[in-house]
Amino acid sequence: MSLNLRIPGPMPLPPDVLEATGRPMINHRGPEFAEIINRMTRNMKTLLETSGDVYFMTSSGTGAMETAIVNVLSPGDAVLSVSIGVFGDRFGDIAETYGAEVTRLKTELGEAAEPKAVSEALSGIPDCKAVLLTHNDTSTAVQNDIAALSEVIRSESKALILVDAVSSAGGSPLAVDAWGLDMVATASQKAWMAGPGIGIIAVSKRAWAAHETSTMPKFYFDIAQYQKFLDIGQPPFTPALSTIYGLDLALQQLADEGIENVISRHAERAEQTRRGVQRIGLELFCDVSVASDTVTAIKVPDGVDAKAVVARMRDEYEVEISGGQGPLAGKIWRIGHMGWCEPEHIDDCIDVLEKVLAELK
Amino acid sequence: MSLNLRIPGPMPLPPDVLEATGRPMINHRGPEFAEIINRMTRNMKTLLETSGDVYFMTSSGTGAMETAIVNVLSPGDAVLSVSIGVFGDRFGDIAETYGAEVTRLKTELGEAAEPKAVSEALSGIPDCKAVLLTHNDTSTAVQNDIAALSEVIRSESKALILVDAVSSAGGSPLAVDAWGLDMVATASQKAWMAGPGIGIIAVSKRAWAAHETSTMPKFYFDIAQYQKFLDIGQPPFTPALSTIYGLDLALQQLADEGIENVISRHAERAEQTRRGVQRIGLELFCDVSVASDTVTAIKVPDGVDAKAVVARMRDEYEVEISGGQGPLAGKIWRIGHMGWCEPEHIDDCIDVLEKVLAELK
Repeated sequence: MSLNLRIPGPMPLPPDVLEATGRPMINHRGPEFAEIINRMTRNMKTLLETSGDVYFMTSSGTGAMETAIVNVLSPGDAVLSVSIGVFGDRFGDIAETYGAEVTRLKTELGEAAEPKAVSEALSGIPDCKAVLLTHNDTSTAVQNDIAALSEVIRSESKALILVDAVSSAGGSPLAVDAWGLDMVATASQKAWMAGPGIGIIAVSKRAWAAHETSTMPKFYFDIAQYQKFLDIGQPPFTPALSTIYGLDLALQQLADEGIENVISRHAERAEQTRRGVQRIGLELFCDVSVASDTVTAIKVPDGVDAKAVVARMRDEYEVEISGGQGPLAGKIWRIGHMGWCEPEHIDDCIDVLEKVLAELK
Repeated sequence: MSLNLRIPGPMPLPPDVLEATGRPMINHRGPEFAEIINRMTRNMKTLLETSGDVYFMTSSGTGAMETAIVNVLSPGDAVLSVSIGVFGDRFGDIAETYGAEVTRLKTELGEAAEPKAVSEALSGIPDCKAVLLTHNDTSTAVQNDIAALSEVIRSESKALILVDAVSSAGGSPLAVDAWGLDMVATASQKAWMAGPGIGIIAVSKRAWAAHETSTMPKFYFDIAQYQKFLDIGQPPFTPALSTIYGLDLALQQLADEGIENVISRHAERAEQTRRGVQRIGLELFCDVSVASDTVTAIKVPDGVDAKAVVARMRDEYEVEISGGQGPLAGKIWRIGHMGWCEPEHIDDCIDVLEKVLAELK
């Protein structure tokens, strides 16, 4: 199978990472696993630029987002949920499900959150316990300026900053400690060059303090369990070993490459994608100033059947891109360029898109 | 690597299943995945002997146990938790964490739960909303008679029956519908011949009715989300694809083999293990009448360093068994014989155990 999978995750795996996923099972409470989990933790801390804690849960990115919420909040807590798309809405929904009092700030689809708007919203919420931010919303391919948003929040309140960095971490600049972020959620299948199945959470000291008084119920996602077992080189619960094998290797490769290089590689692919799309006469969905480093959204030209294009690209040319979700269905296409993504992957994708558009005219 | 992994899960994978885990990534919202999830669901229903619903979550078995609790209960609900070991305690802990009023019934370690004791406990709990049962507790290698327990519970109360069948399903008789079980949790890495990473839940009509009024918070583990997406052949959240590939193939093989044959194969391996252990002069931890079909516990002879035996078996002979947990640490060994387990795996394990015991004398 030579599918050029260009959806916003999962992404194709580098051949050696793919091979690693096929390794035989081992005892997750034995010395070999201890080596793996300790190495993964060390590398992930380096890559996220944090000296805080990092844990790996067997879950999707949504599981990591739930982990961010339930470990630091209590029912009734006032929370500001800043949404720039489907995944921002979801972050707020999780908090609401667990009993938080959620105030929602939503941008127009295709726009990023303005620090000023967040500041204003925040000033209307006394004792705001946490602000929920999306770093990169794959539904719109818009990226927030987390550093700027965080600066405003930190200077004007004591609110914890919980960040959905599922599809940005490892692909966009993200300095967890320097930016003062408290819970940062990401997932293995996005920029980390591994398969899906592992949710990742970075936890600050302030988050741990909040954990002490947090009363939202948690068991499977309780970070205290993860820390307790990490102390003895184990996971609290049997982990998705196949995904772990690949992720461990991928994180080592990324750490060897150096996070600055990983980030600039992603910026280059994003730039290549945007240029390619425009070269074949298509329009970007959002302004370049807020465009994502990991996924690009393209406007579907008037009169073109978006779904037919996706299906023909996949069925005839083995290139798979995504359509839009919810209100953007039929209006945009999305091309993923995170994780393992060579310039040829992008060229092939753009060429096939151009060809199929011509064929379906 | 030719490790004979004889812990109570994860187990070694059949070569073709292992190969399947190494398959390239696909779109989890595309037609190929729809085929996989629909086939897995169909096969799992057959194997669990249920016409009810079955869902696959990216999680460990504990995640599936949490799914069983949070979807049908509300804070304040009276629950009877019947524990025969570590995992029974955990099931009660999860319910308590989410606010249930949990009454605990615990057996001596090494014993199964008596229907009469459950009946008595139940009569002391007015409006008992659910009874939590463990089918097979890997910590003691004791198996409950779920059919008999369920009969008592169903005849004497309206309590829902939630079963941790994580390490029994697919290895021991388990007729979900015929026995009137409401939520049955299991996991990919036990008898199902796949790697860890996928929790599985079977849901009865009564459980769905309880879901309607359940107020325990749930998002990632909300079965309503799983059903909504299964209707369009999708998972609600990005699943652990590598594990899914293997599980899909394994479930097809098990369905082809036929559940009766799968069960008797497990019974044979269990019998072989028990005989082998006794042949080399060791004593079983529990009575054969309550002995597990999927894992066997052995008493560590007086004066023998249990940990040293495990380490030497692993380091010198590439056979890995488990020690005891909690109060049983140092007192028992546990040999897993679920999933892919050929007679040679057992013979090799017993031979090496005998050899190492002689060497360490």
